[in-house]
Amino acid sequence: MKHLSGSFANIPGFSNLGKHVGIKPDGKDFAVLLSDKACSAAAVYTSNQIQGAPLSVTKQHLMNNTAQAVVVNSGIANVATGEQGIKNAAETAALVAAELGIKEEDVLVASTGVIGPQLPMDKISAGIQGTKGELSADGDFAEAILTTDTRKKEICITAHGFTIAGCAKGSGMIAPDMATMLSFIATDVKIAGNDLSEILKSCVASSFNMMSVDMDNSTSDMVVVMANGTVDADIEQFGEALAYVCRELAKMVARDGEGATKLIISETRGAYSLGDARKVAKSIVNSNLVKTAVYGNDPNWGRLMMALGNSNAERIEQDKIEIWINETLIVQNGVAVPDYNAEKLSATLSSNEEIAIVINLNQGTYSAEAYGCDMSEDYIKINAAYTT
Amino acid sequence: MKHLSGSFANIPGFSNLGKHVGIKPDGKDFAVLLSDKACSAAAVYTSNQIQGAPLSVTKQHLMNNTAQAVVVNSGIANVATGEQGIKNAAETAALVAAELGIKEEDVLVASTGVIGPQLPMDKISAGIQGTKGELSADGDFAEAILTTDTRKKEICITAHGFTIAGCAKGSGMIAPDMATMLSFIATDVKIAGNDLSEILKSCVASSFNMMSVDMDNSTSDMVVVMANGTVDADIEQFGEALAYVCRELAKMVARDGEGATKLIISETRGAYSLGDARKVAKSIVNSNLVKTAVYGNDPNWGRLMMALGNSNAERIEQDKIEIWINETLIVQNGVAVPDYNAEKLSATLSSNEEIAIVINLNQGTYSAEAYGCDMSEDYIKINAAYTT
Repeated sequence: MKHLSGSFANIPGFSNLGKHVGIKPDGKDFAVLLSDKACSAAAVYTSNQIQGAPLSVTKQHLMNNTAQAVVVNSGIANVATGEQGIKNAAETAALVAAELGIKEEDVLVASTGVIGPQLPMDKISAGIQGTKGELSADGDFAEAILTTDTRKKEICITAHGFTIAGCAKGSGMIAPDMATMLSFIATDVKIAGNDLSEILKSCVASSFNMMSVDMDNSTSDMVVVMANGTVDADIEQFGEALAYVCRELAKMVARDGEGATKLIISETRGAYSLGDARKVAKSIVNSNLVKTAVYGNDPNWGRLMMALGNSNAERIEQDKIEIWINETLIVQNGVAVPDYNAEKLSATLSSNEEIAIVINLNQGTYSAEAYGCDMSEDYIKINAAYTT
Repeated sequence: MKHLSGSFANIPGFSNLGKHVGIKPDGKDFAVLLSDKACSAAAVYTSNQIQGAPLSVTKQHLMNNTAQAVVVNSGIANVATGEQGIKNAAETAALVAAELGIKEEDVLVASTGVIGPQLPMDKISAGIQGTKGELSADGDFAEAILTTDTRKKEICITAHGFTIAGCAKGSGMIAPDMATMLSFIATDVKIAGNDLSEILKSCVASSFNMMSVDMDNSTSDMVVVMANGTVDADIEQFGEALAYVCRELAKMVARDGEGATKLIISETRGAYSLGDARKVAKSIVNSNLVKTAVYGNDPNWGRLMMALGNSNAERIEQDKIEIWINETLIVQNGVAVPDYNAEKLSATLSSNEEIAIVINLNQGTYSAEAYGCDMSEDYIKINAAYTT
């Protein structure tokens, strides 16, 4: 597997753009990704019971597992906007389809930003005019989908003759089960839509759904993958590569969590089941007290014990637990290792931007990873001031 | 119902003390509550799968629903301390029993503080010497059980001829299901131990288990109630009064949450079931994004929609939802009320220390309240620096 710089530009047949249409006061707020032919496509959506209007439209348009374009706006989430919101999402798709000369039901829609207001359809409609001529291989799609993010999240890998490129946005209201997080992935692989859908579900389960910035699931999230069918591929090899791409994007999102200074990689080993492994790994990155301890460079294993005890895992025995932080063993048989090198550990905590927490439950053979970030005063500042 | 000032001093037959024995560097860290006769007693414990050593001992000693004294230390939680920790908890009970001339199995033990270290049994043993003579009606029990708390939490009410007095501690690692929270309640009511146990469970479900400072369940929590059997009481009237005392103590704990500036009272109305009502009410006070919005005096109903959508309640229909903040209706039929008085609402948010969030699901007749607090930079400061 080889990493390529950039993202969609590496796959012939895809073009994209990012532009300012006036939904945000300034900055790019409107993005289109287009394939020159209809693609096999699949998506996974937020589990929040309150869902944004774009999700209704996208679900409808993806019923045939086919898509040719994605249109995304940032600034307004189009959530809690009633019938008018759904009309606006559908109209956005229709306007883009007309401009690009493709089928309306082959356009997927996503929005991210403030909950409540209606989309300014006059600005969006004006902005869509002329987009056909503005599309290019290296457009600003990955930039235009951002909200409170501090950086673009892009990846492209090539392996076994095929290529997968993707980008993501999200830095707050991010929790397990796909919180304010959008990700768009393109590939040249030839694959049936229902196979793609199954593979994507499994990839999301071990990547985006194992990521948490706060505990708050957004109303708008989705991960979309479009495959334009150019390259024959082994389905298992493609699945592994897509899982890798999803995990790397999930890590980029966690690392850019609101106010975050460190990426936390939480690994569970020796779990009785995959469910237990995932619950324990997630419980660590979800705990405010663990997150503040990591921010404080404090190897506070007591909070790790507390968090894993809250995981609802089926099999936990206190006196079998081992905990490593940055490869230092600090808990064995459920109690503190008396002579661990505290100075060395503290030094790695303050100097590393990536903190590795490994918990061995010694109950079985399953393992899992979860991705999170620390919690700083800036998380409070950003969220006390920002109207989402 | 009448409020009395102070706490245990209002009930003849109970004496208590709070003193410094040297577990903390300074400040009171050791507390005893004694009844002059054996009481009907009951307790409810944390749901965390990792539980402190004192809980094992207390559960054992309460198997007969009888207790005469409670001994509590602050500073060290006696959690993740293995066999030695359990020995130390049992020895503490035995030493107190010997000093007070009561049965060892009638002494309940609780600890709160840092996870990991063993209790300094030499200091505790020395501190227990002479406690018999130090007990008084108005001892410093409620003060000596505190850790990061900024104030004592005490209450005493009298109604229908009986009296209930209680105190609590806790300000961080507090979540639904009894996070780092200790509460001790005494009453003069005559009641069988198993009845007391049933009533306490139901009272805790609507009070302490509806309270959240962070999502983090502690390993050490318990609520203990001791009834010395002096006064005959109607069991239903006693149950209502005990529920009131538990709710008021829960609010005091939430109000004193680490770094908190405001108490949030989240009420669900019109829920399809009691379970749904509780899930929605809790989901609001558990959300970091709701908590930071309240801190920022931001009537951010979009985050309330997000949080209620994450509640896992069985019946939510977006277009039936109504939301009030401090008695201002801001969402109706699931969308923003266009002409609500934003200025007036903002003014009540910044001037009130108690924020009332009411969500009507319009699905049925059940309601519930949950108690939480806002989240400020000080929550981060306290928890990035404090080794629990």
